[in-house]
Amino acid sequence: MAGEVESIEKFLDEYMPSAELKEVKRLLYGKEIRLLEFPAEAEELAKEKDFELKGYGCDAARESSRLPKIVRIAGVQNKIVLPTSAPVAEQRDAIWAKISEIIRCAAICGVNILCLQEAWTMPFAFCTREKKPWAEFAESAERGPTTKFLQQLAQQYNMVIVSPILERDEDHGDILANTAVIISNTGDVMGKTCKNHIPRVGDFNESTYYMEGNTGHRVFQTQFGKIAVNICYGRHHPQNWMMYGVNGAEIVFNPSATVGALSEPLWPIEARNAAIANSYFVCGINRVGTETFPNEFTSGDGKPAHKDFGHFYGSSYVAAPDGSRTPGLSRTRDGIIIAEVDLNLCRQVKDHWGFRMTQRLDLYAEELADVNKPSWKPNIIN
Amino acid sequence: MAGEVESIEKFLDEYMPSAELKEVKRLLYGKEIRLLEFPAEAEELAKEKDFELKGYGCDAARESSRLPKIVRIAGVQNKIVLPTSAPVAEQRDAIWAKISEIIRCAAICGVNILCLQEAWTMPFAFCTREKKPWAEFAESAERGPTTKFLQQLAQQYNMVIVSPILERDEDHGDILANTAVIISNTGDVMGKTCKNHIPRVGDFNESTYYMEGNTGHRVFQTQFGKIAVNICYGRHHPQNWMMYGVNGAEIVFNPSATVGALSEPLWPIEARNAAIANSYFVCGINRVGTETFPNEFTSGDGKPAHKDFGHFYGSSYVAAPDGSRTPGLSRTRDGIIIAEVDLNLCRQVKDHWGFRMTQRLDLYAEELADVNKPSWKPNIIN
Repeated sequence: MAGEVESIEKFLDEYMPSAELKEVKRLLYGKEIRLLEFPAEAEELAKEKDFELKGYGCDAARESSRLPKIVRIAGVQNKIVLPTSAPVAEQRDAIWAKISEIIRCAAICGVNILCLQEAWTMPFAFCTREKKPWAEFAESAERGPTTKFLQQLAQQYNMVIVSPILERDEDHGDILANTAVIISNTGDVMGKTCKNHIPRVGDFNESTYYMEGNTGHRVFQTQFGKIAVNICYGRHHPQNWMMYGVNGAEIVFNPSATVGALSEPLWPIEARNAAIANSYFVCGINRVGTETFPNEFTSGDGKPAHKDFGHFYGSSYVAAPDGSRTPGLSRTRDGIIIAEVDLNLCRQVKDHWGFRMTQRLDLYAEELADVNKPSWKPNIIN
Repeated sequence: MAGEVESIEKFLDEYMPSAELKEVKRLLYGKEIRLLEFPAEAEELAKEKDFELKGYGCDAARESSRLPKIVRIAGVQNKIVLPTSAPVAEQRDAIWAKISEIIRCAAICGVNILCLQEAWTMPFAFCTREKKPWAEFAESAERGPTTKFLQQLAQQYNMVIVSPILERDEDHGDILANTAVIISNTGDVMGKTCKNHIPRVGDFNESTYYMEGNTGHRVFQTQFGKIAVNICYGRHHPQNWMMYGVNGAEIVFNPSATVGALSEPLWPIEARNAAIANSYFVCGINRVGTETFPNEFTSGDGKPAHKDFGHFYGSSYVAAPDGSRTPGLSRTRDGIIIAEVDLNLCRQVKDHWGFRMTQRLDLYAEELADVNKPSWKPNIIN
């Protein structure tokens, strides 16, 4: 038990007798989700490049008036490659090289829509509060080198790629933003969507670098389904998740970077709750590994200065609108999680549970409008 | 493994080695919560009357400018007592007798605020769609016999009691409502709060009996803290939870009645997510046992008519604003769960995570106002 634990599922599988394991998994994960098998070429690539490859299938009932909408979605979690002291362009290029292999593996596995982790081209350097050299990682969402790099892969593999980067918004005074670029399977940039809620907690000093996004809750109609991106800390805000649902999302990606001591017991709860409450699929992606920086920093917790961010615990997973979920990827290794989902399940669950029908958005619009008036007082009965 | 499983915790404790169990519990339940000990008199009463008695303590940091606000809160889950074919008044009286013993036990354990399960005086007869005789269980929130019965206990034990009943609203045309009555520790009725979201799913035919509540999201300032009540199906609606938080709730009770086949994998997720997102404590309470009715009914699922509702799986628990939670009560037995909480944790978590500060309610007020306009179109980018 020294060091970081691999996963909770590993313990359960190891110690629990099979009948009890089945019941525990039903209670923890909902209905049984089937395992996907992949071509040997993909398995070999994963082994050679040392990343985990896991796949699960989530079915829906057949309907007589709609064909199934079977889509393979994927989330990628990865460590950085070079030390954070290496030149910025070299760090980025080394991550590009790693990711291009994982995307190739995804293509072999028939993935239609893939999302990378938050600020995937760089270490999560916002703990440092230094602008130099980290701001150098920022680039144009529409025209930057990372977008061009992925456009080529998206077209080659006929795959929608969601690329969460540190954006340099050249059209708006060179400001930074935390942005996901949506690249169509044709290789075109469909658009971008920004992080709506920015943390100020522990080492997450992101409000030093960029402001709350002003791109609202847009949904992208890709060839494979309607997708949205709720970046990282936005997962703590249920109303943020809700608005992507109200705009019609069928799949919401949540590319994140979060560490064990801060958020780990919250991780299985929030994204899954969003999938349930909004009758859509969620793919929660967390960075993995420990990142060490050249200069020391403090964490706003009274403890001594240090140079690492703590352990990013991976554990990426997919949650379905019916409350079921896949196991998580490793807490320690690079990995790709693939889910084959039938998007018809979204509307089937809406019909069954009726959460949208019973949502009373008019009531909440009215109450929130009141809350924002200067005259508002909390509704407290003494 | 025949019949209903007692609890997931029992399996974990039985099969998992202690070091691994500790890590699994950290990942599943967050920070370790201490066990409470109770007077022997309470333990004996629980044994004699055959109900589970479990207690946990959740601490907060000491502050130099505020005293701790230590409160003992409790949730009660119980089976009905007599067959559903017995006369209504006899059924109710038998449940009263059982509950009076459990409340006495709570008093011995020093409970300050106690909440009973949804529609606690009756079987959950809404599966039948029959008005007779079930509407006979309905009574006035302010002046009904159940309220009077509890007022006496509340005063005797200096305990706030939340009493979720089927209400007969005599002042509004004798309509029915699903209502929680808040009885102060002085024995006065502080007020009532109604179920805001009504299900239409499977056997939950409640929309046949009552409408969505119009009491909004009021919070009650009791002597022991600010409480609110989110009744049953309202737990599926994050914006409902949110508004209780916006109005200042420190503890939200969620008295429920839900069955295994429908909702069990959702149960540990939704109330806990609400505690996290809104920086308050939640006490989730679910009915327990299987209730059989005199006349057969169908479940809207194409299966043959039958006379029982399926298994109400208990599993009541308390979740804290820092993401930690207690284990659940039994899936099969009557029980009371008691949590000793320091309400100072609510503001401490708000300061730490900053979810309220970063909530952007003005953005959501604006977006929801738009959604309700006839001209609204979903924000979809092609």
